[in-house]
Amino acid sequence: MYASFYNIDSPVMLPYQNLIKLDRHSNHPVFLQIVNQLILIIQRGQLQPSAKLPGSRSLSQSLGVHRNTVVKALEELQAIGWIEIIPNKGAFVVESLPVSTPSNWQEKEQEEHSGKEAFSFYEYPELSPPYSFEHPLSFDDGLPDIRLAPIDELARAYARNMRYLAHRKRLTYTDAAGNKKLKKHLVKLLNESRGLNVDEENIMITRGTIMAIHLSILVSVRPGDKVIVGVSNYQTANTILTHFGAELRKVPVDENGLQTEAIAELCRKEKIRAIYLTSHHHHPTTVTLSPERRIHLLSLAERFNFLILEDDYDYDYHYKNTPILPLASGEQKDRVLYLGSFTKVLAPAFRVGYLVAPKRVIKELPKLRRLIDRQGDVVLEQSMGDLIEDGSLRRHLRKSWKLYKERRDYACKILEEEFSDYLSFKKPAGGMAIWTKFDKKLKLVDLSKDLLERGLFLSSGTIFNEIGRKQNACRLGFASLSKEELDQAFEIMQAGIKAKLA
Amino acid sequence: MYASFYNIDSPVMLPYQNLIKLDRHSNHPVFLQIVNQLILIIQRGQLQPSAKLPGSRSLSQSLGVHRNTVVKALEELQAIGWIEIIPNKGAFVVESLPVSTPSNWQEKEQEEHSGKEAFSFYEYPELSPPYSFEHPLSFDDGLPDIRLAPIDELARAYARNMRYLAHRKRLTYTDAAGNKKLKKHLVKLLNESRGLNVDEENIMITRGTIMAIHLSILVSVRPGDKVIVGVSNYQTANTILTHFGAELRKVPVDENGLQTEAIAELCRKEKIRAIYLTSHHHHPTTVTLSPERRIHLLSLAERFNFLILEDDYDYDYHYKNTPILPLASGEQKDRVLYLGSFTKVLAPAFRVGYLVAPKRVIKELPKLRRLIDRQGDVVLEQSMGDLIEDGSLRRHLRKSWKLYKERRDYACKILEEEFSDYLSFKKPAGGMAIWTKFDKKLKLVDLSKDLLERGLFLSSGTIFNEIGRKQNACRLGFASLSKEELDQAFEIMQAGIKAKLA
Repeated sequence: MYASFYNIDSPVMLPYQNLIKLDRHSNHPVFLQIVNQLILIIQRGQLQPSAKLPGSRSLSQSLGVHRNTVVKALEELQAIGWIEIIPNKGAFVVESLPVSTPSNWQEKEQEEHSGKEAFSFYEYPELSPPYSFEHPLSFDDGLPDIRLAPIDELARAYARNMRYLAHRKRLTYTDAAGNKKLKKHLVKLLNESRGLNVDEENIMITRGTIMAIHLSILVSVRPGDKVIVGVSNYQTANTILTHFGAELRKVPVDENGLQTEAIAELCRKEKIRAIYLTSHHHHPTTVTLSPERRIHLLSLAERFNFLILEDDYDYDYHYKNTPILPLASGEQKDRVLYLGSFTKVLAPAFRVGYLVAPKRVIKELPKLRRLIDRQGDVVLEQSMGDLIEDGSLRRHLRKSWKLYKERRDYACKILEEEFSDYLSFKKPAGGMAIWTKFDKKLKLVDLSKDLLERGLFLSSGTIFNEIGRKQNACRLGFASLSKEELDQAFEIMQAGIKAKLA
Repeated sequence: MYASFYNIDSPVMLPYQNLIKLDRHSNHPVFLQIVNQLILIIQRGQLQPSAKLPGSRSLSQSLGVHRNTVVKALEELQAIGWIEIIPNKGAFVVESLPVSTPSNWQEKEQEEHSGKEAFSFYEYPELSPPYSFEHPLSFDDGLPDIRLAPIDELARAYARNMRYLAHRKRLTYTDAAGNKKLKKHLVKLLNESRGLNVDEENIMITRGTIMAIHLSILVSVRPGDKVIVGVSNYQTANTILTHFGAELRKVPVDENGLQTEAIAELCRKEKIRAIYLTSHHHHPTTVTLSPERRIHLLSLAERFNFLILEDDYDYDYHYKNTPILPLASGEQKDRVLYLGSFTKVLAPAFRVGYLVAPKRVIKELPKLRRLIDRQGDVVLEQSMGDLIEDGSLRRHLRKSWKLYKERRDYACKILEEEFSDYLSFKKPAGGMAIWTKFDKKLKLVDLSKDLLERGLFLSSGTIFNEIGRKQNACRLGFASLSKEELDQAFEIMQAGIKAKLA
């Protein structure tokens, strides 16, 4: 249609008033809007090479703008090479532009409808469920109570550091391994609290544990490598491992953590490259790897020369006696990559984590980091360093530890007193969630849906299922809820359960 | 040695005062320090299963601490399962712990020295040079002047949003595609300034252009795919492409940008999957892709069904007439992924960028993003949204545009008047750097070293070399330097050049 109506010699003028839409409220000058839209018309082939444009007077009338505006637009188009203005003759589309026929354009539209020639992007399986905890009331996966975090201290530190670093021209490209100040204070904190014996060259600052896992796998796993994980395991870790081509080998998890005998058996059968585990509070079941198994695992790692990826995401929240030192604190630390995060201490929104590793690994990592996001947030990292230095973080840990312990005890008491007919659980020694197994007469998938309608988020548990192994269990996060909120949540849960069983 | 001295029945007590180092200034309680270090001694096999520990009195004397501290430590060790305290007999390492002989430990040390059984991590080539611009005076790669950025506005917005979101419990896991507010205002800004015609579902917020490139390649390139780039090209893009297994096909770049005839030729020879380019201001040579070639490229993309990765990192700084609309503004936008960033507008430290793509791609990307860093910085993103909404960003753009234009003109004037014997360049129509070719009598690699000693950073240019194609040229960033600083920098450069040629 366009081809016949609007070809080069057609006496009919294009319906510019329809083709060019002007927005007078836009911050973008009107003459530029005209320029841009005329270029599109040329690109589409609606105006062909050598075609004559309408005179400025008639165009200004069609568009309802001052003639000077059109003149300015045409001059601009000439300056940037789209048209040529010949005195006393008029404005013409540059002759040398490649011909782009409107029929092509029409064909393309048809092709798009038939899907014939559309570019096909690579697709990925639904790797991990997109969860979000922006519900008013949630038994989350084990997240901190954001309201307790030292937000004022952090906000002040952030604003202060931003101004300071801007003034020093230091808001620029910098070390991809992380901010010096944070590394310095983190080293002290880790050595003191976790018995590590590391210095700044053993540390890389990352965006939360996720990036630490991502980078760890990049330097240790290639497609086809066998990696051991527990059944069940932190689902995102499985996903990242699989994404990078690891073949997962699964071992059972009981009340003492991963069964190391099963690990030994696997090692005797085939070359194992690495193991990923959350040794302190196993995700999702919250159990702690026992001392016997720790020693056993470390000796196996040495004997069979595999790497240990130790994700210690909530080390600081252990309520029963002393936290057990990480595997990374031992003599075999050269084969342990230790991952941690401030996510579980402050709030998931602050994507700051760390990776502790042998120096030769930390040297390697910035190369890879520069291909992902170039570097971390220098302002946020420096501010976290301030919070460790001035004691805010420690005070927050002390305060939240006490509160979370109370909340755990309170939640467990209610579960025991009022829900023992419907579910079973073991009081966790640490962490921020209770691993809760529901009675099979209650289908968690259905219950979860029903509770959401009643205003309470409870995981459907499907994320914890492995192939051929439905658990009907989920993590019940207690740390982010006050006692009043726990009361409220359990009340809804009870009502939901009773309705289901009625 | 340990094996004979310190075996189970040895009457000799371990030199605990040497093995256990206490730090009284630490925030970590002394009893926990004892607990942790005794666990290490057991793990190392220096204390074997069933071994008797010294009495609390003698241990407290060795360590110089109060006896109650030692008692508390031993009770703790019992509680967490490492030792057993038998009334009237003493404390013993738990019998059931696996034996970890000290000889093993010694062997391991030897092995480490010989390197025999150390875990071998995967290594990567030096992918891209680790550059940093934390020099007092730099001709950088073309970075903004951080001192002009609306730091106060941003710092205030950040602190305000942090408090607000914390209060609403919204500092939690959220949409990996980015903050709603920022997307909303960015859509308006992009549609107005770049002639795009997109909505929020076409946008993903990323950490700067780097992550946008990273994600784009994940959905469009697989190992073995052929991707076209210019010679030279933005080095980091080449690196990421190569990292993901793309086979690069290179086409020449002249004063009108990439030669599209060469692209057509490649397409006729083999299946081309994608092209990466910086169409507006080519990196590194700053040239703009001409209108003819734009139309030609778009028609080739359609004809040969390849994808266009359009990196438009410094669109906003174009000084000559109108900026040319991105390729992504045309009809073929379904095969263009458009990448941009606030890095070049504010400061490299603010890692916020974006990716504009067909909706089906934007739907796919959060899956992949969740494996990298889970999500962006919700506080920073919301604050950027505020800066667009309240006009701060626009005012900053206007102010900095004017200043950078002056700085470009000033720098070019000096280069022309005082350096024309030593180098050649073409005044760039946009961007923040001048592509400067040095005379071959001046080796840039040497000059660069010499200038650094004199207090001025100037790129050695090696980053712009391609195999078999040494350029002796570099980008000379002018935007981040005031006129006084430009004077100073050029003075140093002149002194350096004269010394070299003397």
